[in-house]
Amino acid sequence: MNDLSTAAAELAAETTRILERLASCSDGTESAGGVTRLLYTKAWSDAQRVLEDEMKKAGLETRYDNVGNLYGRLPGRLEDAPTVLTGSHVDTVRSGGKYDGAYGIAAGIAALAFLKKTHGTPLRPLEVVSFCEEEGSRFPIAYWGSGNVTGLFDWRGEAADLRDADGISLMDAMVEAGFGKPDGGDCRRTDLAAFVELHVEQGMVLERSEQQIGIVETIVGQRRYSVFLEGAANHAGTTPMTMRTDAMAGAAEIIFRMETLASQWGGPLVATVGRIIAAPNTPNVIAGNVEFTLDIRHADEWKLTAFCELILTEVERIALRRGLKYATKPWLSTLPVPMSTSLSIRAERICFNLSMTCRRMVSGAGHDAQLLATECPTAMIFVPSKGGFSHSPQEYTSPAQLADGLTVLIALLQELAYEELTAP
Amino acid sequence: MNDLSTAAAELAAETTRILERLASCSDGTESAGGVTRLLYTKAWSDAQRVLEDEMKKAGLETRYDNVGNLYGRLPGRLEDAPTVLTGSHVDTVRSGGKYDGAYGIAAGIAALAFLKKTHGTPLRPLEVVSFCEEEGSRFPIAYWGSGNVTGLFDWRGEAADLRDADGISLMDAMVEAGFGKPDGGDCRRTDLAAFVELHVEQGMVLERSEQQIGIVETIVGQRRYSVFLEGAANHAGTTPMTMRTDAMAGAAEIIFRMETLASQWGGPLVATVGRIIAAPNTPNVIAGNVEFTLDIRHADEWKLTAFCELILTEVERIALRRGLKYATKPWLSTLPVPMSTSLSIRAERICFNLSMTCRRMVSGAGHDAQLLATECPTAMIFVPSKGGFSHSPQEYTSPAQLADGLTVLIALLQELAYEELTAP
Repeated sequence: MNDLSTAAAELAAETTRILERLASCSDGTESAGGVTRLLYTKAWSDAQRVLEDEMKKAGLETRYDNVGNLYGRLPGRLEDAPTVLTGSHVDTVRSGGKYDGAYGIAAGIAALAFLKKTHGTPLRPLEVVSFCEEEGSRFPIAYWGSGNVTGLFDWRGEAADLRDADGISLMDAMVEAGFGKPDGGDCRRTDLAAFVELHVEQGMVLERSEQQIGIVETIVGQRRYSVFLEGAANHAGTTPMTMRTDAMAGAAEIIFRMETLASQWGGPLVATVGRIIAAPNTPNVIAGNVEFTLDIRHADEWKLTAFCELILTEVERIALRRGLKYATKPWLSTLPVPMSTSLSIRAERICFNLSMTCRRMVSGAGHDAQLLATECPTAMIFVPSKGGFSHSPQEYTSPAQLADGLTVLIALLQELAYEELTAP
Repeated sequence: MNDLSTAAAELAAETTRILERLASCSDGTESAGGVTRLLYTKAWSDAQRVLEDEMKKAGLETRYDNVGNLYGRLPGRLEDAPTVLTGSHVDTVRSGGKYDGAYGIAAGIAALAFLKKTHGTPLRPLEVVSFCEEEGSRFPIAYWGSGNVTGLFDWRGEAADLRDADGISLMDAMVEAGFGKPDGGDCRRTDLAAFVELHVEQGMVLERSEQQIGIVETIVGQRRYSVFLEGAANHAGTTPMTMRTDAMAGAAEIIFRMETLASQWGGPLVATVGRIIAAPNTPNVIAGNVEFTLDIRHADEWKLTAFCELILTEVERIALRRGLKYATKPWLSTLPVPMSTSLSIRAERICFNLSMTCRRMVSGAGHDAQLLATECPTAMIFVPSKGGFSHSPQEYTSPAQLADGLTVLIALLQELAYEELTAP
């Protein structure tokens, strides 16, 4: 561990250098700035080549699978032993930040380089992965990289039917980028001993609570709904308050009510109305139709279900009282995914030994780790995000904070790949 | 009066016939249907020609003023006496109904034809007017017809600077339609003894209260505002409820609060949020910015002001408590306009003598009558609108209801134009 503490500045510099190289791979011609690196675009290919180059410089064996996931491997002395994997995704949202996804890959490469240099050949194979896609920003599918690795998706299956905004199919884009070869084989991995994903928090919990490291206990389950209210689009002047069926006022009551109830329930429940569309949306006409979305998340499936049922009941109660017609349509439902307790306890002990402050927390966002967790023990480590900015050019984590996460990652990978494993 | 009661069926048929001719003058190629007759378009010119023809058939002297207001005149025996005027506006909103505006003109022509036939030459000049424009649907100006008559506007003034959605100036459109002649003179009338406007209610007060006739005491004053809320557009999953500044939830609280307060104050106050725009308007992002409108109306200026101040204070209170930045921008303010008490009492007495049910009420919508009221004693008479539908192809008033209003109009015009006037 002493090596590690003294090497922190050097490790931070190395991670930052890789992140800067990656950030220069961007289609970001938009005025909004930031990094735009959509799946199978030139910026994406450039970024994967940068990472391939960095992996080689770090002394790793590189290979792409048939959807474009890039691996860098440090063979283990026990070559048949299952592989310890770290990494994250290389794609970004439009006008995203430098750190989301990229940090976990850059830190993984720096970690493997450091471990190879200071500890030599590991006992078990150790790999870093740059997943080709996680954000769902170009095609209407997310987790394309880790989904193919874990068997949720098969590149032969969905790829022909999904199209981007320009009408290009996922299959055509994949082939154009040099993947999706008919004889390219399967992307499925069944040889994994563990997966560790290092990521920026994308929220402000660590910053507000002044903790260096977040150890994710659970990635939340999510439910999303569209709510449709229909009243009567009457004249705003000639319709007395007592004769209205005002879809806007009904929506306002429901939105305010959901916020009140969610605040009363307390964390880790969160409930959001991010989108609203009113019609005719004219100042002097009572809104006849309002549609809005519900995004509800919780780490506990039963509580998630209970809250959703409560809100749907409230929608019904408020709509009926007001004489509004209503409909609710669920369109996304994912279960909470617990991370490995034993890996999390290891990470927590490492923080303690390194005298770093840390807290257990839930991840309110989805990550590749939630797919990998179905395959092998999986841990997720967060570092703070300044101001909680995410999916924005304003995303920022300081070099010292990047080094903190990298230090914990190295220590954890060292235990998992270099040591005889016992219970944590 | 006996003539009148027995002629009701014939009068209803005559009004309906003129309304059908007018409804056939429409640019309404939109799938929404209804009548579309925007200022100075071919549909508008067609409609004025139909009305000119009907006026001539009714034995009236016709003339256009220089903005295209069309008058039909029955000269009085006292040719120097001020003129008794009735009528309404010929233009419509896009995909509007058959009755809004058109009814007051068609009924006016039928009324003058009936009076001429049954009572001969009036004591005072009696005229019906088809105001060229009231709705503000083509150019960003409303009351262009009655505004030029009452001196609020001058056709030489505003017309060059106002443009429609195609960039055509009001002046060019007016000249193209054959008006706005340099030597065309003034449109101002200072010779008016009284104005009576017959109109469909555009609300459901008469229908719900089962009254045949509404006599408008006051046309409400209106205030409109835009409210801007700015919070932080954070991640809907990673931002705990306690760390949010959610512009959507803030807007919802304000909208619901305003509705609650307006309902507590009771009529004739009405308060509406008809328009809302959220950004980024994405289901999984907390809304960073929400903008919405307030439309507040009351027949009493002091109460209108008091309620607006209360709501603006509530906006401030709610925004401050939530840590939202806020701004409010007023963009429309009109005073309540009382109608003539003596004319209204005459109308009420006429209803009583004809055994018609009637009620005094406010008009929540603006009308040409509010401009004419600054010039001469003015009365406004409403007939029911089925379901309160307005500015919609669903607008409907039955022939019997049309006849009720026409009967009252005839009786009132007879008193004003044929009789030696004393106090009501």
